[in-house]
Amino acid sequence: MAAFTAHTSAATSLYSPAGTAILLRSRSRAYPTTTTIRVSCSKTVVIGVAADSGCGKSTFMRRLTSVLGGGAEPPRGGNPNSNTLVSDTATVICLDDYHSLDRAGRKAKGVTALDPRAHDFDLMYEQVRAIKEGRAVEKPVYNHVTGRLDPPELITPPEILVIKGLHSMYDERVRDLLDLSIYLDISNEVKFAWKVQRDMAERGHSLESIRASIEARKPDFDAYIEPQKQYADAVIEVLPTQLIPGPGDDEGKVLRVKLIMKEGVEHFAPVYLFDEGSTVNWIPCGRKLSCSYPGIRFAYGFGAYFGHEVSVVEMDGQFDKLDELIYVETHLSNLSTKFYGEVAQQMLKHADFPGSNNGTGLFQTIVGLKIRDLYEQIVARR
Amino acid sequence: MAAFTAHTSAATSLYSPAGTAILLRSRSRAYPTTTTIRVSCSKTVVIGVAADSGCGKSTFMRRLTSVLGGGAEPPRGGNPNSNTLVSDTATVICLDDYHSLDRAGRKAKGVTALDPRAHDFDLMYEQVRAIKEGRAVEKPVYNHVTGRLDPPELITPPEILVIKGLHSMYDERVRDLLDLSIYLDISNEVKFAWKVQRDMAERGHSLESIRASIEARKPDFDAYIEPQKQYADAVIEVLPTQLIPGPGDDEGKVLRVKLIMKEGVEHFAPVYLFDEGSTVNWIPCGRKLSCSYPGIRFAYGFGAYFGHEVSVVEMDGQFDKLDELIYVETHLSNLSTKFYGEVAQQMLKHADFPGSNNGTGLFQTIVGLKIRDLYEQIVARR
Repeated sequence: MAAFTAHTSAATSLYSPAGTAILLRSRSRAYPTTTTIRVSCSKTVVIGVAADSGCGKSTFMRRLTSVLGGGAEPPRGGNPNSNTLVSDTATVICLDDYHSLDRAGRKAKGVTALDPRAHDFDLMYEQVRAIKEGRAVEKPVYNHVTGRLDPPELITPPEILVIKGLHSMYDERVRDLLDLSIYLDISNEVKFAWKVQRDMAERGHSLESIRASIEARKPDFDAYIEPQKQYADAVIEVLPTQLIPGPGDDEGKVLRVKLIMKEGVEHFAPVYLFDEGSTVNWIPCGRKLSCSYPGIRFAYGFGAYFGHEVSVVEMDGQFDKLDELIYVETHLSNLSTKFYGEVAQQMLKHADFPGSNNGTGLFQTIVGLKIRDLYEQIVARR
Repeated sequence: MAAFTAHTSAATSLYSPAGTAILLRSRSRAYPTTTTIRVSCSKTVVIGVAADSGCGKSTFMRRLTSVLGGGAEPPRGGNPNSNTLVSDTATVICLDDYHSLDRAGRKAKGVTALDPRAHDFDLMYEQVRAIKEGRAVEKPVYNHVTGRLDPPELITPPEILVIKGLHSMYDERVRDLLDLSIYLDISNEVKFAWKVQRDMAERGHSLESIRASIEARKPDFDAYIEPQKQYADAVIEVLPTQLIPGPGDDEGKVLRVKLIMKEGVEHFAPVYLFDEGSTVNWIPCGRKLSCSYPGIRFAYGFGAYFGHEVSVVEMDGQFDKLDELIYVETHLSNLSTKFYGEVAQQMLKHADFPGSNNGTGLFQTIVGLKIRDLYEQIVARR
């Protein structure tokens, strides 16, 4: 935690290298933060989603836009390499677009994409604020294929703006703009297992090279990314299962997932199991519901998370059958569903998404429903 | 378990000593099992309660008759040393009244009161059957003060007959007459702690003599009393707490109590917590309910008990305040209460009874409510 300082206080030293500062200024000029366009929607609800790469941000975005309704696609007629997703209600922007150093620049300076020095937080803040206030912006586009910055794209204020990336909650000014913030926290064991699965099986990398690449990222991850979870209103924490005794082959396959929800957040009522504010352990598999090995276990409780009071719902294990999912949904409260079985319906609709049979999919879906609910509460209040 | 054989098969050898057999026959003649009196109530519901001495049978009876309504008193104008309790609805008879050997007889033969040879099961069966069929009986009276048999007393068929004693479920023929059977199962540690509390504090016995008396009873208890629990529809099992780590002074004070309920018993729907047929652990103390050390923990689950499928509700810890009790009552299901808070009301009404602040009182009260419910279901069906 000591390595982490809020952006505002760290800004001076971080931006002191002359070249970076010039780039920052030139960028601010190149991309005016405001236009004269005013949209009918008076104020945009802003959601921040932070996580390391390969931790399921994109899957979460697909679940979220599905819950919000309407298909999400890149801006029509725009850059085919745009990182933005636009749906009827929501626009998702990727914070990689605020890279102040492109791939070559990062390489030249020996700075990773995790390092705040590679990002233009001033521009990010100004543009997110502009959108929140109802003004369109010309947002930069980082091209993940070329590793360079492409011409900017126009972002008009949507009803819901989701900013997702490595640093969504890094800058205090940006944090203050967020109506809700979510951190996807994948434990080292699971991250390693996922990376092995993807990079070894699909890309032919060696186990050693995967381990080395994780190790190389770790100092910056620990210093700049992970500490953001203290600011999150909701954290989805992914851990190895505890249902299978001892370390085994199932690591990274069977998962224990926690949904940590901050108390007292406006328009965000934490989900609970059976009895709000108590501590519950629940194995739904039994007389009415049969489950295959290793079964499913839920836990619910409360506690402190970085000094904040939180409620925690945990799921260990995975769903084998639809009726298991519906059964579980029936017993969770404060889900913000609009009809009986909506969580199950959402998860079935995207059964091909990673995690649709376990707590990652369940809690991503639930957080999506909570975001829709939060948005509707804010709109209703206006 | 091997030492235990059903009465019917064991009868020949048990009653083979000539003296005992004669006593048995003479007793049968002395107390005719039937009279010509027919009561309006066509059929009596019969409940069996078995337990060792000093295990809370009498407290349970007081809770039960209170739930059934009306005060329970010894038969009016009868033997002041009668062991019977009569209320508007229920009559409770003590099976010590079926002693075939009085105190001197047992001493002469070297037989304890736990030994079936000291009991007249034939008479017990005939009289319980007679009452169940609506016929009054002249029941023997064992005088606990003199240790001898007093003249018999008339028992007219009540709506509910409770037979309580050491051997309520020992005889197969009597078991078949029971509409519901309950066993109070006090673990050795708790039994010892209770005995120390009573016999040492109140009667000045030494710790060694208490231990010796328990040890002396143990073989007969293990052979004849404890095996009855396999036949019980409900078992209240009392164990030392698990909330206080390590063996300590609190043994026998803070209790962990289980209510084990057989599945598939007619008119007896097991109590459950939150989700019927699943496994739940619940610590109600938390945000809404504050509890003092060591708190309260509930568990609910299912399993096998002597080859029968059972549901189990467990309470560890004790109630300090009324709101804790009401809170817990609110979250238990299938309690067979007639109004909100009836369990709490019953326990408060008898706050001076032993166990009114823990699981023994809670589950005794609940079993009382289940008996009332069973009775009402049987009556409704007629």
